[in-house]
Amino acid sequence: MNNTVKPTDTVIFYDREKNKKYFINLSITPKFGTENGVIETKDVIGIEYGSEVKTHKGYPYLILPATLYDFIMYKLNRLTQIVYPKDAAYIALRLDVKPGDKIIESGVGSGAMTAIFAHIVGPSGKVISYEKREEFIKNATSNLNKLGFLDRVEIKHRDISEGFDEDDADAVFLDVREPWLYLHHAYSALKKGRMLGILIPTVNQIIETLKKLEELSFIDIEVLEILLRHYKTVPERLRPEDRMPAHTAFLIFARKV
Amino acid sequence: MNNTVKPTDTVIFYDREKNKKYFINLSITPKFGTENGVIETKDVIGIEYGSEVKTHKGYPYLILPATLYDFIMYKLNRLTQIVYPKDAAYIALRLDVKPGDKIIESGVGSGAMTAIFAHIVGPSGKVISYEKREEFIKNATSNLNKLGFLDRVEIKHRDISEGFDEDDADAVFLDVREPWLYLHHAYSALKKGRMLGILIPTVNQIIETLKKLEELSFIDIEVLEILLRHYKTVPERLRPEDRMPAHTAFLIFARKV
Amino acid sequence: MNNTVKPTDTVIFYDREKNKKYFINLSITPKFGTENGVIETKDVIGIEYGSEVKTHKGYPYLILPATLYDFIMYKLNRLTQIVYPKDAAYIALRLDVKPGDKIIESGVGSGAMTAIFAHIVGPSGKVISYEKREEFIKNATSNLNKLGFLDRVEIKHRDISEGFDEDDADAVFLDVREPWLYLHHAYSALKKGRMLGILIPTVNQIIETLKKLEELSFIDIEVLEILLRHYKTVPERLRPEDRMPAHTAFLIFARKV
Amino acid sequence: MNNTVKPTDTVIFYDREKNKKYFINLSITPKFGTENGVIETKDVIGIEYGSEVKTHKGYPYLILPATLYDFIMYKLNRLTQIVYPKDAAYIALRLDVKPGDKIIESGVGSGAMTAIFAHIVGPSGKVISYEKREEFIKNATSNLNKLGFLDRVEIKHRDISEGFDEDDADAVFLDVREPWLYLHHAYSALKKGRMLGILIPTVNQIIETLKKLEELSFIDIEVLEILLRHYKTVPERLRPEDRMPAHTAFLIFARKV
Repeated sequence: MNNTVKPTDTVIFYDREKNKKYFINLSITPKFGTENGVIETKDVIGIEYGSEVKTHKGYPYLILPATLYDFIMYKLNRLTQIVYPKDAAYIALRLDVKPGDKIIESGVGSGAMTAIFAHIVGPSGKVISYEKREEFIKNATSNLNKLGFLDRVEIKHRDISEGFDEDDADAVFLDVREPWLYLHHAYSALKKGRMLGILIPTVNQIIETLKKLEELSFIDIEVLEILLRHYKTVPERLRPEDRMPAHTAFLIFARKV
Repeated sequence: MNNTVKPTDTVIFYDREKNKKYFINLSITPKFGTENGVIETKDVIGIEYGSEVKTHKGYPYLILPATLYDFIMYKLNRLTQIVYPKDAAYIALRLDVKPGDKIIESGVGSGAMTAIFAHIVGPSGKVISYEKREEFIKNATSNLNKLGFLDRVEIKHRDISEGFDEDDADAVFLDVREPWLYLHHAYSALKKGRMLGILIPTVNQIIETLKKLEELSFIDIEVLEILLRHYKTVPERLRPEDRMPAHTAFLIFARKV
Repeated sequence: MNNTVKPTDTVIFYDREKNKKYFINLSITPKFGTENGVIETKDVIGIEYGSEVKTHKGYPYLILPATLYDFIMYKLNRLTQIVYPKDAAYIALRLDVKPGDKIIESGVGSGAMTAIFAHIVGPSGKVISYEKREEFIKNATSNLNKLGFLDRVEIKHRDISEGFDEDDADAVFLDVREPWLYLHHAYSALKKGRMLGILIPTVNQIIETLKKLEELSFIDIEVLEILLRHYKTVPERLRPEDRMPAHTAFLIFARKV
Repeated sequence: MNNTVKPTDTVIFYDREKNKKYFINLSITPKFGTENGVIETKDVIGIEYGSEVKTHKGYPYLILPATLYDFIMYKLNRLTQIVYPKDAAYIALRLDVKPGDKIIESGVGSGAMTAIFAHIVGPSGKVISYEKREEFIKNATSNLNKLGFLDRVEIKHRDISEGFDEDDADAVFLDVREPWLYLHHAYSALKKGRMLGILIPTVNQIIETLKKLEELSFIDIEVLEILLRHYKTVPERLRPEDRMPAHTAFLIFARKV
């Protein structure tokens, strides 16, 4: 892929001197202004990433690409708890998501997991997201639009108690309060042999889900949690950070047979 | 994607009664035989995944797709410590790997990380892997061939002290003993604004790498480790497993500016 | 305390050349014999710890004191899962156990937690342990005898559904399958303001216990778990061990008001 | 031990209605006053713990004993990072500290570890703490006085580069910046066969300490860290807390032979 800035990109204006980053969506924001002066964002389109641009006062910024991780962690508009990258990355791998796949999820939340699925399935794949709350759909659509992913994401305004329309999903992912109520629908939506993923915050939900999974024709049932610990990046005094997230979610995986 | 078995697939023969799985590479293994009888693997090609096939004695097996996770954990021929899925999934996300990308890594090891990169960049992308040990190249090539990934992977037989040929990588990943010796080469190979990832097992290596990273034009330096804990899947007595991996590797990420 | 070997001590015969340790209970074992020859254990009594003794063939051993930790980890005869030192040490501190205290526990298990309580309350304190299974009493008594703790431990052969005899315990500790059935008894046994500790392996047990604790007059309810990770002691390649315990038990603490 | 309030106790005034606790040192504070009125603290001395006392306006408080844990976590005046209970409890057990022991430590810090040693060695034991900074001595003395531990603690105003006076310590504990400089002094101070404990925050310090320990006559060298994770105590939605300490310190243990 070439390394030039496209009109729909979310880019980073990087102030090297102060080691400070500003995330700017070029299709939305016409002017980037600070106390150091103003840059018209249209002047950034078409230049190479890593190039320097200057404000009308001559203050330099480097233009850098925003990664999906950056976007999820720093720019996503959040109406809900998001699926964190440590969990999302593992979910995508365990569900065997790859370019061209058709993935079903519910609910859409703020669109973080949707974005990661969309990122991996690519323009030839499809992510179909079921969501019953209109304000979540609106917000997630806006988030996914900024990432240029609306071509490969379809959000259906639907309560999944009515089931899914599809019966050929390469993977199904449930991030809902009572997943045990919808496991039979997830089963119907999946291709045979494919994976179901479930994200839930409490042990009570694990217990209810496991009870129900045992009744259905799922194998390879796994329950797990992932912890991520950062270190302070001082080589002379290397040690872990003082605090860390103790919990984001429990993950359940199972395979339809 | 359709759900039929292709001649180059690695598939699972699933014995439902005994809840037992056999991973078979159809392009290599002509006959699948157990005490329950024999199945000629050519008879499996073209049928739908999830179908039942019977041995000549009439014993049934379900034919299931092997996920990349299955392959890495259970079928990869290992000459080295592999990059574990919990780490590999996070690395791929943090390096912002997506369909169509060009990724450089060194060394190839047993090909686990290579396979995950190849899985995500898809047929329109490219993974270029530098490796100096011939036996690793041979083994990794065999592993990647079983996954059908040789179309998108190029392994270069080269010591990276000579540098990389490329200067337009979307991401660079180093899994070598002394990464601090090659950071300037990684820098040269990367597009501006893109991510470098490093995997190392010891804290001494973190210290050396951080010292050198500080000298180069990398920002957003992060050091972290990921822990994954499984639970026993008994809903009446839910509790974590007794033992878990305490350590696989430390991960370092940085962005070129 | 003086540093001489007493007739009732469990001591370590340390083979310095091979860095190997043998735990010997002097009151039980009259002869310590290896392929290097024999030492009569009565010859060890009264010498100073750290002294060297030789077998009849002239092979030297250092005589070292066995710590309580050594005893619990390596010499305790186990009929049950034991309370591990990482948990036991924290339990003793949180229950505010100190010299002279009267502590009640149930059941006795293999006597590991009993031993730690006895170690801390000292000769002026008392540990009263309720246990319904005779074989556990017999085994724990034997273990505690080897440690010289029978002067300060009383084991009552009793099902705690009948309640505790005491109403002036400085702390109560429950390591039983259904602690929620006995919380009112624990309440009655405790002095006002003192601490209850509970050890349970599953989350289902946490849920049941919390429900019942809410009904009784306990405050400061805490639920937690402790993880301990070892490192390989190689300074040139410092890293965590490959594997670790993922779970021993959950701990609950509460204070009677 | 009887359960009556002593003039030197630090006690909790517990407001049951608001589930709120106030820690009051009776020997220091003559009046306990809130918007609900005043209690003269001398009126509390001699009553039984768990009793209710009323302010002059008739508002009731329960008088509860402060545990050592409470004191360390909520009332200790801190001039330094303290040794946290999860670490301190394990250190005391691994060093085999028991009633009557003589323990040497350096430095005194804010006195948290000192207090735990003093708590366990009891009135018949001794904790000797070496500290070179006068303001730490003053603050720790004040903290230990509130706990009534000055009878069993001696703080020596000394730089340990000059060595320890004692050669018969049951255990030595080092919480200093460069422990590797003093390992030979720790060795001299210990009885043969006894344990050394070291607390350090960085991996660089582990590396230096291990290098030096290898040169001295210590065996059973262990390096470890302890993680403690709390759970939210809601039985209907049981889950870990959102955040936790990621790191307090690394612990090293070794035995002198």
